[in-house]
Amino acid sequence: MSGDTRAFQALAQTVGDRTTSRLADVEERLAQIVGARDPLAAEPGLQTLRAGGKRLRPLLVLVCGAIDDATPEQAEALTRAAAAVELVPMATLVHDDVLDDAALRRGRPTIYAAHGREAAISTGDLLFALAFAELTKSGDRDQVRALSDASSGLARGELLQREDAWNAAVTRDRYIERCTLKTARLFEAAAQLGAYAGGRTELAGTLAAFGAKVGLAFQLADDVLDVVASTEQTGKTRGADLLDGTVNLPLIVAAGHDPTLAEIDLHAIDTPEQAAAVCDRIAATGAPDEVLAEARGLVADAKALLAGTVSVAERAVFESIADQAVGRNK
Amino acid sequence: MSGDTRAFQALAQTVGDRTTSRLADVEERLAQIVGARDPLAAEPGLQTLRAGGKRLRPLLVLVCGAIDDATPEQAEALTRAAAAVELVPMATLVHDDVLDDAALRRGRPTIYAAHGREAAISTGDLLFALAFAELTKSGDRDQVRALSDASSGLARGELLQREDAWNAAVTRDRYIERCTLKTARLFEAAAQLGAYAGGRTELAGTLAAFGAKVGLAFQLADDVLDVVASTEQTGKTRGADLLDGTVNLPLIVAAGHDPTLAEIDLHAIDTPEQAAAVCDRIAATGAPDEVLAEARGLVADAKALLAGTVSVAERAVFESIADQAVGRNK
Repeated sequence: MSGDTRAFQALAQTVGDRTTSRLADVEERLAQIVGARDPLAAEPGLQTLRAGGKRLRPLLVLVCGAIDDATPEQAEALTRAAAAVELVPMATLVHDDVLDDAALRRGRPTIYAAHGREAAISTGDLLFALAFAELTKSGDRDQVRALSDASSGLARGELLQREDAWNAAVTRDRYIERCTLKTARLFEAAAQLGAYAGGRTELAGTLAAFGAKVGLAFQLADDVLDVVASTEQTGKTRGADLLDGTVNLPLIVAAGHDPTLAEIDLHAIDTPEQAAAVCDRIAATGAPDEVLAEARGLVADAKALLAGTVSVAERAVFESIADQAVGRNK
Repeated sequence: MSGDTRAFQALAQTVGDRTTSRLADVEERLAQIVGARDPLAAEPGLQTLRAGGKRLRPLLVLVCGAIDDATPEQAEALTRAAAAVELVPMATLVHDDVLDDAALRRGRPTIYAAHGREAAISTGDLLFALAFAELTKSGDRDQVRALSDASSGLARGELLQREDAWNAAVTRDRYIERCTLKTARLFEAAAQLGAYAGGRTELAGTLAAFGAKVGLAFQLADDVLDVVASTEQTGKTRGADLLDGTVNLPLIVAAGHDPTLAEIDLHAIDTPEQAAAVCDRIAATGAPDEVLAEARGLVADAKALLAGTVSVAERAVFESIADQAVGRNK
């Protein structure tokens, strides 16, 4: 059983059987969208799908839309929105694998490795278009706007990351801006989409703010993992960010404690062994724990936003999702 | 003065000053979308914009929406739709340049060449997201659906092209399917978007069919150019399709006349000189003229669809756009 499967099962206990079965509907829908429509695109698309993930964003859509109380029409709209919101990062990951020359993602061959650069770029474009095609079947203008704004934010975040690559002097503000664009916006959009599609427009603002904080916490926790977790735990090389020239918050915080880290030449980190050695130096400063504490602080802030807006039972579900966002570190 | 500028000025005389000035508004809007919002993305984005093109798709939006008779709200919606419909192929071209290792497009350095693969992929993703963001500001669900369907068609067409690459046995039907996905669908969507945004929903079906035929004619004529036109005329290597492993209709038709062309090994065509020599063999069969005649037949069919649907004056404008789609060969 993979770490994702374990995490998913733990989450399922909290969100309840009905929501879990709705998430299975989303999974089925994703397989239909990616595979059934087009034999040509099916194999690469399904490959991406099988690579899985925790599906936190689709879950956020369903829960923000109160799927358990939804009418059949709302449930259908929520399923579509949940699928759409997962197709966008899937598209980006397929493109990222081209950029990173990645052979594996979550232990499976990437589309890039199996089918080539051309198929990977076109498949990414296709997944992106399918996200909007799917959302538009039920979604109104506000929903499409939320997804397109988040998608352009994601692309801007990628551009910012490339712009800042190899620059050890990147500030915390700049890092937060990048993570907001790259990650938090799509969590925010997922929450908005859920609120709209589930007919809880009055909650959209609060839930969007909740989603944004949880998304940022998720990115911070992910960056901590990059420093402290083994390849066996994550399926990625430890210190992959360093090898990629990406300055993350654990490094920024660590550099504040250890001035020799502030002067590090990122271009000189060429091998996984060198990256692991720098990760050890970052960990020695205590920075990963500080960043994780910051992520948990964001989760606490996110939870506090919900006071008085949803029922106690529902709040427990939201809190479980928020915890899950930083949960791989527990 | 470039060929595009000349073509544009000739077209402007036909469509009238008002529509021409509206097209300038679209150009301005595109510059704003691409440049003003984000200094980071501005330079690569503006670079793509300056590479220009004939803007046939935005023009189709404006004319199908009867921009000259539009209310201010409709005019704004048409401007947005026209910009959106141009951003999608811009995004694809930016990605294509990565795939083709292209240093120049229309005589200017590509984003890929100037800013690298990473910036090019992210910029393409961004342009794509911005297309939907722009359309959604005024567009309703039908419009977003038209654009997302066309966009997924485009990506599928690219996948089909890569699947069929280097296969000299590709059939005419398969070629038409590929061009329909890659090119005709977006012209079709442009016509639909115009009809919707201009409040002429009753014409959407007819205009969509007109757009699809004009789009297919455009692709056929473009493929003829690839065989017969010099690099000075098009800014592309003559026989670029052959070098790319793409079997186009002139080759398929020529192979029917000259069996030695049916047995050609596309992998053996490595240099521009070799490609030019094969182009000469294709041209010697008369195939380019036959394909061009077929493109003009599609244009005639497209024009015939309009009988009795629009005024005589408006019909002249539509006919001029249809002619322009195959006009680079005149």
